[in-house]
Amino acid sequence: MERPLPGPRAKPHLAVPVALDRDGGRPLVAQLVEALREAVLSGLLPAGERLPSTRTLAQDLAVSRTVTAEAYTRLEAEGLLASRSGSGTYVARLNRAARRTGTAPAVPAPAAPAPAQAPRPAFALRTGETGPVHEGSDGWARAWRATARTAAPTRYQEAAGLPDLRAAIADHLARTRGLVCAPDDIVVTSGTTQSMDLVLRTLLRAGDTVGCEDPGHPVVRSLIRVHGLEAAPVPVDDDGARVDVLAGRARAPRLMHVTPSHQFPLGVRMGVGRRLDLVMWAREHRSWIVEDDYDSEYRYNGPPLPSLAGLDRERVIYLGTLSKVLTPALRCGYLVAPGGLPRRIAELKDIVDGPLSWPVQHTVLRMLTTGALERRVRRTRLHYARARTVLREALEPVADLVTPTGLEAGLHAVLLLADGIDGARVARRAAELGVEVAPLSAFRHGPSPTEGLVVGYGGLTPDDLAEAAALLVRAIAEHRS
Amino acid sequence: MERPLPGPRAKPHLAVPVALDRDGGRPLVAQLVEALREAVLSGLLPAGERLPSTRTLAQDLAVSRTVTAEAYTRLEAEGLLASRSGSGTYVARLNRAARRTGTAPAVPAPAAPAPAQAPRPAFALRTGETGPVHEGSDGWARAWRATARTAAPTRYQEAAGLPDLRAAIADHLARTRGLVCAPDDIVVTSGTTQSMDLVLRTLLRAGDTVGCEDPGHPVVRSLIRVHGLEAAPVPVDDDGARVDVLAGRARAPRLMHVTPSHQFPLGVRMGVGRRLDLVMWAREHRSWIVEDDYDSEYRYNGPPLPSLAGLDRERVIYLGTLSKVLTPALRCGYLVAPGGLPRRIAELKDIVDGPLSWPVQHTVLRMLTTGALERRVRRTRLHYARARTVLREALEPVADLVTPTGLEAGLHAVLLLADGIDGARVARRAAELGVEVAPLSAFRHGPSPTEGLVVGYGGLTPDDLAEAAALLVRAIAEHRS
Repeated sequence: MERPLPGPRAKPHLAVPVALDRDGGRPLVAQLVEALREAVLSGLLPAGERLPSTRTLAQDLAVSRTVTAEAYTRLEAEGLLASRSGSGTYVARLNRAARRTGTAPAVPAPAAPAPAQAPRPAFALRTGETGPVHEGSDGWARAWRATARTAAPTRYQEAAGLPDLRAAIADHLARTRGLVCAPDDIVVTSGTTQSMDLVLRTLLRAGDTVGCEDPGHPVVRSLIRVHGLEAAPVPVDDDGARVDVLAGRARAPRLMHVTPSHQFPLGVRMGVGRRLDLVMWAREHRSWIVEDDYDSEYRYNGPPLPSLAGLDRERVIYLGTLSKVLTPALRCGYLVAPGGLPRRIAELKDIVDGPLSWPVQHTVLRMLTTGALERRVRRTRLHYARARTVLREALEPVADLVTPTGLEAGLHAVLLLADGIDGARVARRAAELGVEVAPLSAFRHGPSPTEGLVVGYGGLTPDDLAEAAALLVRAIAEHRS
Repeated sequence: MERPLPGPRAKPHLAVPVALDRDGGRPLVAQLVEALREAVLSGLLPAGERLPSTRTLAQDLAVSRTVTAEAYTRLEAEGLLASRSGSGTYVARLNRAARRTGTAPAVPAPAAPAPAQAPRPAFALRTGETGPVHEGSDGWARAWRATARTAAPTRYQEAAGLPDLRAAIADHLARTRGLVCAPDDIVVTSGTTQSMDLVLRTLLRAGDTVGCEDPGHPVVRSLIRVHGLEAAPVPVDDDGARVDVLAGRARAPRLMHVTPSHQFPLGVRMGVGRRLDLVMWAREHRSWIVEDDYDSEYRYNGPPLPSLAGLDRERVIYLGTLSKVLTPALRCGYLVAPGGLPRRIAELKDIVDGPLSWPVQHTVLRMLTTGALERRVRRTRLHYARARTVLREALEPVADLVTPTGLEAGLHAVLLLADGIDGARVARRAAELGVEVAPLSAFRHGPSPTEGLVVGYGGLTPDDLAEAAALLVRAIAEHRS
């Protein structure tokens, strides 16, 4: 597709770039509405910001004024823009109705004008979504402002992460997870996913077998696949992963991935006896355990058990993350490994990636050392505890049809459905009513009936959660035989 | 090594954590000095900040007061701390002498008390180092502050990168590199290293051959090695990589990595004829070209040639980076690829890493759309142009012994030495005089005499560069036969 090189351009009046595809056949108004909506909902166009006039924007984008005027009209109807007569068009302060539609997921431009779209769910009860990072005391914003005024380093930093950050993480782990390690045992990464990828790259060879919980996190299965490894699914009961099944395998997997604090997705906690069995298995076979401690800050019925890594520093590789405490969009985590492993992993990371972004490291360090992170954990723990109470109470009308599991911790739970109830149908009905939930079958290794629903409640306010839960309960109740 | 779990601790008075290793045998004073020096030079302890008294710090760290007092004394002697009688100890405003020692590289703790250390170079003429990011107009700090006050997303973002950022990059490439592409042709990464790693993971299989320039970037060689690939070194002359040698190979490499704007490290530019030959080679063998455009913003003798990717969008994968324009510590870059490749790469990135940190993306987008990035490029281009003039003039006394190459662009140059001069000896003598340079042999694939020195001048002020260059010239001149 030939496009002439753009000539020198006048300074655009809109603070965010809008790229319009004039050849794909998709209406310009729809494209412009989508681009402006995304900019408003993501905060790139902040509340109160004045937009250019329809005439100016039309000139800037080289479209007709009817296009820009229609786009503004539609977004005013959605409540995202507001016009003040004689004064122009502004980004509205988002009310609940507008926020309910959420951030529109990226929709690829169709080749022909789009048909009327299916109603988009109003509530997404997704896992992996947290509460807003900006809140009352605003430790987040303060920490970023401190980073903004600190002279950034002008050279490559060490791949394992800033020494002070690793020291602060070691201190944090000793105090909160009973895991005593040195700063040099730690490698700062972009999160659990990258930590797992580096571990697999460093320790395993194509054809090796990796044990993983079933049901379990789809990311682990995908990683196993892209690495050319074999997956050994290990079932989960209400005491955690079935270590007896793992130990009964003819050939021991080289590595076993577990989520012992709050099994993902079922939410059960691995009991102490099970933990000891697992460690003994690893020692006997000189296999590795990867302890994925993704949401251990959030337990509502008492303190968490000490980490597995605290039981055995030699065979356990511990993965921590800031994704739940702060936001999954930050991309910051760390791993703790024994012996020479951190150095090997850091050397590999240096070759294939480099260190984590310095501003991100500096800000997280700031939040750790000023206590802002700890304050956020306490505040959000209260918030999520209230949310899960809202959810549990909302489920009472269908207590005969639904058994929730995993509500004692974390930001999600699983609703196990009574026999005869088809979870896939319930999920579809819920989507029609405006609530998005994931079927439990999506988290299993093989095909299976959908006997449960996975419900993330971290991203909604208590009021929205109550409304979403009521709609979900309605979808479930309709299947009462 | 057994350590008791720390008990509940009183709030430390030092704003940064200090982790002391009491078992490794390294003196506590030296450890504390190093930790405080690093904190001051990295900005974690900002100028003017008051430090705890020697007594308080001794209590906090559970060391004797002589340790903290001695540490403060040494750092005052270095000019990093200053005491005001009756008022305490403060972080000094760094003067040039203190800044000259730079940030101390991480030194692993030796098992026994350290012997007197070799004098640390005062000037490091390293590649990969840029000028300070905080400057007059402070677009950097403003952009981070804007990010600080913007509501961060609370869910996982798309792995390819924020759509608005990709659109802004596409716009930037069209205007500055003659490369016209769509936002969906772009994947935002943590930099050139990660871009290359993802490309190799997506396109190549173990045993495939990768062509790379010789001399060339050590990172490329390391990546080839960790991927289990074969390296095919391709020599470089003053017109760039020897495409005739590449084309003469019995089996065509699957991929050829080139730095056509400013060959790394020799600094030559690939001529137009050579570029066309390379593209024809790639088309004939359906091989890939990776165009590593790492410093094309900085050319001092006229505008850069259009990118290779602008010549052929089908066979060329373009790698861009913010490391030189902003700082290598930011870890932000991007790749542009044809056809379905960006989608495949983004899918892999989603599985093994995730998207780049949202705050980093948001800030870079902000700098792009406000014009701050362009202003920085213009300002730093003047600065680096002056620096390379300083270097060139300083070299005049040894014009008979040294031929500089690559001074027309970028942040580094190579000083080719006259026959009979042992570059390794010159480099060692330069280190004794306080100037760190890299021998050219470190960038070659096989062993070779060190017939040149690689000099990075991006990280020094013009005054410091003049001083460093004078010392380097002295080291060279001493070898005049």
